[in-house]
Amino acid sequence: MKQIDGGVTAAKGFEAAATAAKIKYEDRDDLALLYSDTPCIAAGTFTTNVVKAAPVIWDKTLIEEHRKVRAVVVNSGIANACTGKEGLSCCKETAKAAADTLQVPEDQVAVCSTGIIGESVPVDKIAAGLKDLAAEKNATKENATAAAAAMMTTDTHPKEAAVQTEIDDVTITIGGMSKGSGMIHPNMCTMLAFLTTDAEITQEALQMALDEVVADTFNMISVDGDTSTNDTVLLLSSRKANNPTITEGTELYDHFKEALMSVCQCLARQMAADGEGAHALLTVTVIGCESKAQAKLIARTVVSSNLVKTAVAGHDANWGRILCAMGYAGTEFDPDKVDLFFKSEAGTIQILKNGRATGFSEQEATKILSGPEVTILADLKMGDEEATAWGCDLTHDYISINADYRS
Amino acid sequence: MKQIDGGVTAAKGFEAAATAAKIKYEDRDDLALLYSDTPCIAAGTFTTNVVKAAPVIWDKTLIEEHRKVRAVVVNSGIANACTGKEGLSCCKETAKAAADTLQVPEDQVAVCSTGIIGESVPVDKIAAGLKDLAAEKNATKENATAAAAAMMTTDTHPKEAAVQTEIDDVTITIGGMSKGSGMIHPNMCTMLAFLTTDAEITQEALQMALDEVVADTFNMISVDGDTSTNDTVLLLSSRKANNPTITEGTELYDHFKEALMSVCQCLARQMAADGEGAHALLTVTVIGCESKAQAKLIARTVVSSNLVKTAVAGHDANWGRILCAMGYAGTEFDPDKVDLFFKSEAGTIQILKNGRATGFSEQEATKILSGPEVTILADLKMGDEEATAWGCDLTHDYISINADYRS
Repeated sequence: MKQIDGGVTAAKGFEAAATAAKIKYEDRDDLALLYSDTPCIAAGTFTTNVVKAAPVIWDKTLIEEHRKVRAVVVNSGIANACTGKEGLSCCKETAKAAADTLQVPEDQVAVCSTGIIGESVPVDKIAAGLKDLAAEKNATKENATAAAAAMMTTDTHPKEAAVQTEIDDVTITIGGMSKGSGMIHPNMCTMLAFLTTDAEITQEALQMALDEVVADTFNMISVDGDTSTNDTVLLLSSRKANNPTITEGTELYDHFKEALMSVCQCLARQMAADGEGAHALLTVTVIGCESKAQAKLIARTVVSSNLVKTAVAGHDANWGRILCAMGYAGTEFDPDKVDLFFKSEAGTIQILKNGRATGFSEQEATKILSGPEVTILADLKMGDEEATAWGCDLTHDYISINADYRS
Repeated sequence: MKQIDGGVTAAKGFEAAATAAKIKYEDRDDLALLYSDTPCIAAGTFTTNVVKAAPVIWDKTLIEEHRKVRAVVVNSGIANACTGKEGLSCCKETAKAAADTLQVPEDQVAVCSTGIIGESVPVDKIAAGLKDLAAEKNATKENATAAAAAMMTTDTHPKEAAVQTEIDDVTITIGGMSKGSGMIHPNMCTMLAFLTTDAEITQEALQMALDEVVADTFNMISVDGDTSTNDTVLLLSSRKANNPTITEGTELYDHFKEALMSVCQCLARQMAADGEGAHALLTVTVIGCESKAQAKLIARTVVSSNLVKTAVAGHDANWGRILCAMGYAGTEFDPDKVDLFFKSEAGTIQILKNGRATGFSEQEATKILSGPEVTILADLKMGDEEATAWGCDLTHDYISINADYRS
């Protein structure tokens, strides 16, 4: 498996484009198109929030009815959430405009939105923008990056990833793009991520691989503990690679899943590192657990703790907050057996041995905690299961961004 | 029922004192004593964190074995958490020192600590301080306030409350003191709160009243979502009021519980309002629910949302974040039926009617959200149950306090 450039258009059959439709932002691209020249099979995971944005309802129906996908239209600036029946009409009209402009079936157009809750998207601006997108779409990496950038809100940079691997000596490609960076505490999936592949695979295997991979990647990141109304991950396959068909429960499936995991983990880490106001990527790995579920619960609780996140922001080796957060995760363990380590590019330091401070050097710990990527490693010594969660530090910039987001 | 002065020494039979034992702070009182001249019956609730501080283990045993209580020794600065067997020895030695100095049985001394995790308390300093406390203890309101102040950490002011009410024409008094103000997301009980009464009541009724009241008061506040290792609420009764004995399931019990609720709610609100870095007390009331459990879940989820809290800090009527938080609370409701209001001393404004924005004035909403106490009121229109949770806004000061707490 190797990492390659090209993001969401790296796989065969996909094109992308971005344009400034002036939906909310005045001076940047805010409308993106992902396009396939043939119908794709598709898998998706969506927010578990009771309050679901209109595009989530639209796309969920599309995926659950196993319809093919020819295009995905994504806007930033307005989330089209809490907009009732009018919001759903916007999705339908957007799909119709895309169908007309791109000459694709209306029920093969997925629609996604991100931004402010409570406002409906201006369909006329989207329809006008779609004409630009249709004219400019292509498979270059420049267009892929432009599409990833157009769907950003408070993100500071676009997020892309792509890998190539061999399936029975046939090269297949998986690529993707995603956006954060606030209201990030996905449950089933994360804000917006669009993944593409050319692998020949059944729809069932595609959905299963996505479900399994999302559980260990996008569902293991947290910026602020808030699960969004718009979380959507779509995985499209053009099936143009000519590999032997991948089905569930086979070696080929495991191989495909591993490549998909690599792309999603890369995107998830980028989203966590670019969390609102973040100065550091925080990785929490819990090992020696009785079960995977226990490991995931503790890792995600620690990475979500405001007090742990502010300690990392202050480069402060305040391990008591970490043990405290582990303790309220809702699973039993023996605090007197816990080993705890801090790791970064500056080195590794053991903080606790069997639940007690090691007499570590505060100065060295602060140096390690000052890196752009900080890892907290905890060993429960109860078993062999482990899990990793990703988040970020909690800084003054987070407050500045969120205390006045709408103005 | 009337509110009175006097805090934790308002009820008959209680004395208090504070002194500077120089445990961690150099320039303020950090050791408090609560004393009863006769043995008190006692009830308690404690943190559900798997990581329990040594004093929690000590006091839990004392309460569960129905031992009487003559004295409570509280220090701030060091939490005596994650200190293993050494931590428990500190509790035992502290109790012994108090027993010697105050001439009370060693197994009638409760011990509480709050502050930094991972360090053991210096028993010699506590023993020396106890001599001062024994000499200075009395029932004045000045001493009660001094005791409440001595147990503060990042609190900006002491928290006290007291009420008097008639039980069958006999006046009984309930008073208390508590401290916050970070690592506040109690589960079973909150950081430290000490409640005293002179009501004649059975131990069983005392514990039941405390459990019921804590569930609706201290367990409904959140500052930062972090459940502490040291949460402890103790309720002592000197039984000196000469009222008819209060037992469970009687009118007298309901009356006592109502008075206890008043004291605990007053303390809980003070703790939320004085949350780390808080500029405003945030009250979230959810009405029209199917069940009390649903109402509590939604109220507590909204009051804990970082995005809601930063919106309040910015006086920003960003109602989408509120509906979003309601949606991920983990209970079903129809977003298209929700009515939402903002209230403060500046007025009341309806933001949503049946899930849609009312076309409210942003200017008026901002004015209402600029008050020192802001209430969010949501109506689900599903039933008659309701609940209230208390928290605070999330500000730059929270980051400043917590990014460098230990230095």
